[in-house]
Amino acid sequence: MRIADPTKAVIDPKTGAMTGASDRYVKRIGELKGCYCNSSAFESLAQERGQDIAYVVDHFLPSADEGDLIFGTSTLQPGKVSDEYFMTRGHLHKKSDRPELYHCVAGKGVMLMETLDGEISAVEMEKNTLVYVPPHWIHRSVNVGDAELVTVFCYPADAGQDYEIIASAGGMASLIVDDKRGGWTQAPNPNYIPRSAKAAKPKETTG
Amino acid sequence: MRIADPTKAVIDPKTGAMTGASDRYVKRIGELKGCYCNSSAFESLAQERGQDIAYVVDHFLPSADEGDLIFGTSTLQPGKVSDEYFMTRGHLHKKSDRPELYHCVAGKGVMLMETLDGEISAVEMEKNTLVYVPPHWIHRSVNVGDAELVTVFCYPADAGQDYEIIASAGGMASLIVDDKRGGWTQAPNPNYIPRSAKAAKPKETTG
Repeated sequence: MRIADPTKAVIDPKTGAMTGASDRYVKRIGELKGCYCNSSAFESLAQERGQDIAYVVDHFLPSADEGDLIFGTSTLQPGKVSDEYFMTRGHLHKKSDRPELYHCVAGKGVMLMETLDGEISAVEMEKNTLVYVPPHWIHRSVNVGDAELVTVFCYPADAGQDYEIIASAGGMASLIVDDKRGGWTQAPNPNYIPRSAKAAKPKETTG
Repeated sequence: MRIADPTKAVIDPKTGAMTGASDRYVKRIGELKGCYCNSSAFESLAQERGQDIAYVVDHFLPSADEGDLIFGTSTLQPGKVSDEYFMTRGHLHKKSDRPELYHCVAGKGVMLMETLDGEISAVEMEKNTLVYVPPHWIHRSVNVGDAELVTVFCYPADAGQDYEIIASAGGMASLIVDDKRGGWTQAPNPNYIPRSAKAAKPKETTG
């Protein structure tokens, strides 16, 4: 029986950097083509700042075994593409019955979630907020503040990520946009292709 | 297919209280008989402060399904029984191949771990430290500071807890004791009954 050594990791809540990470994943602004509704605004930004970092994930992957856990930090820069706030690509777990726990340690964000049936949930988070994304929810982080959004995440090691589920539907049903009063609001995504009849008219909920 | 609603929980790093918890578990000083090496010192303390809270766990249990996650906060009061720092009872997961992630948000502690073969690891933690307890490690938290030790934990929902594994061995192989210089050190537990020949002479490691 393989017995792994315990792991100690120290996070910097300001930068999101984590010591002891086994891997770092960097996503640059130019790589997020297709994520934002306003494609011409995205192209302009990508021309100017395409090499700038959009988000970084520092994670520790002990194994991919059923029952094991992956954890790490996600650090999403602030910004907007037209009126849409910066976001991660988002995913559904390949094993869609796997949940995920997020713990916001800095910044101000929204965990935007939807089910394949078109149910929507947008949960605001700031320092000391935990968000439990239950099984079967597509989810992405959105930075609605003016500083880095830093979360610590933990999910089952056998979960996997399906990123195409969002791209193939023209994005998520809701956009998280500037409300012109210094905050955020949800707006329907005009490019969204409902996956089911039930999803054609998504019910909007905010928690 | 059951689709649960997302959960938002807010933690107070000072008190460890978590909103949205589905359950609270309180352990009082008087209930920790057998945990401490110096039983007469324990009895004296229990007579005086037996009803005082030793630690509190606020947790959220979405299900006990394989692949799901349980999360919450653990808040351990500071104190000593003779020279041993206050600790949780500790456990091995009933499904011993299930790991656990701890994220210290306040205080100063030690995650004391040992395997059934007698390997020992004591990892110091303070605010912003993550400790990954791998599968097959018995683990307990020890408060080596002078304020509440608050951790956020996350573990597989089907893990379960075996508390007897520690009691039946006369405790854990190491004690975490006052080093008389304001810090902590490990000392061998004279009551410890090794579970295997390999464990008879535990190797001490500190990380």
